[in-house]
Amino acid sequence: MPEIDFWYDFASTYSYPAAMRIDDLAASRGVAVIWRPFLLGPIFADQGWHDSPFNLYPPRGRYMWRDLERICRRLRLPLQRPESFPQNSLLAARVALTLSTNQRPEFSRAVYLAEFGRRRPIADPTTIAELLAGMGLAPAEILTRATSEPIKSGLRRETEEARERGIFGAPTLVTGDGELFWGNDRLEQGLDWALATA
Amino acid sequence: MPEIDFWYDFASTYSYPAAMRIDDLAASRGVAVIWRPFLLGPIFADQGWHDSPFNLYPPRGRYMWRDLERICRRLRLPLQRPESFPQNSLLAARVALTLSTNQRPEFSRAVYLAEFGRRRPIADPTTIAELLAGMGLAPAEILTRATSEPIKSGLRRETEEARERGIFGAPTLVTGDGELFWGNDRLEQGLDWALATA
Repeated sequence: MPEIDFWYDFASTYSYPAAMRIDDLAASRGVAVIWRPFLLGPIFADQGWHDSPFNLYPPRGRYMWRDLERICRRLRLPLQRPESFPQNSLLAARVALTLSTNQRPEFSRAVYLAEFGRRRPIADPTTIAELLAGMGLAPAEILTRATSEPIKSGLRRETEEARERGIFGAPTLVTGDGELFWGNDRLEQGLDWALATA
Repeated sequence: MPEIDFWYDFASTYSYPAAMRIDDLAASRGVAVIWRPFLLGPIFADQGWHDSPFNLYPPRGRYMWRDLERICRRLRLPLQRPESFPQNSLLAARVALTLSTNQRPEFSRAVYLAEFGRRRPIADPTTIAELLAGMGLAPAEILTRATSEPIKSGLRRETEEARERGIFGAPTLVTGDGELFWGNDRLEQGLDWALATA
């Protein structure tokens, strides 16, 4: 079965609709999705950005929020702007890496829905604990493991790999032959590529 | 007939496939396209950019060139990287504004094909004169008018209007109700919006 890497950051707005769509799109094509959370912050910092470009460049930010509104309406996804943007995505990314690859997609979708659908603060361990409990998992144990050294350095390595692959934004699909497809509106194209070159 | 404004900069890479596609896409939907050349440079300067973001942020630039390659291959459009990027688009934009709205689309497509298909320097009056002659027009007269005060200030006003409408990149479609659709991959969506809200 052809595989594709789905790189996403929990703070990334366009990663929200992408995360909600990708598994169905991939399943209908017979492509397996590897969910790879990472942190955009260090990669933005390479470019001299110490905030989201959507905050640094207001016209770009205004467009993004309106565009996201149109996208979510079409997909019938709830959308509310988080109380602060971007949310700190470190804890959610660490927890996602702690989970098995089977549990990761469901957890990730739950985080996005909480963040952009219900204005829940995703940097708050209470929010994350609730989401884990909702999946029938043991929050305390997972939260402890999420801040252990192997997970922390694992996430750093993932972010380093994203940088090495040339990733500069999220979501980004990377195919087996190293092609990048950036953005929620390129999911179909990336999956088709993975299928055609498998 | 519903109308849509198609804002483009002759230096913009993604405006090339967009310019080659938009009239057919619009005709098939019964939407009229108003071709509106402008200059991105002053708008980028608002953001502190004094070069193309594709040069300022190398991973973003590498992605764009590869992505453009894939897009042009699919559309069977020729693609060669210009000798220098971005090309200075001032002269081409002034000439486009000098022409009638009937002649503007054909001239604009000819400029893009020369720039990105044949590596011709579009800031060079010789290139522009050849393209005009190829359309059966009188180059000398048009080039003189293109540098007249009414055209120069006309282009400044167009760029000012683009900024006021919230445009921050090219190509951008703007509908009658003020919605923006940024990028070559949003043409269909913008045209559909124009049709649905007409």
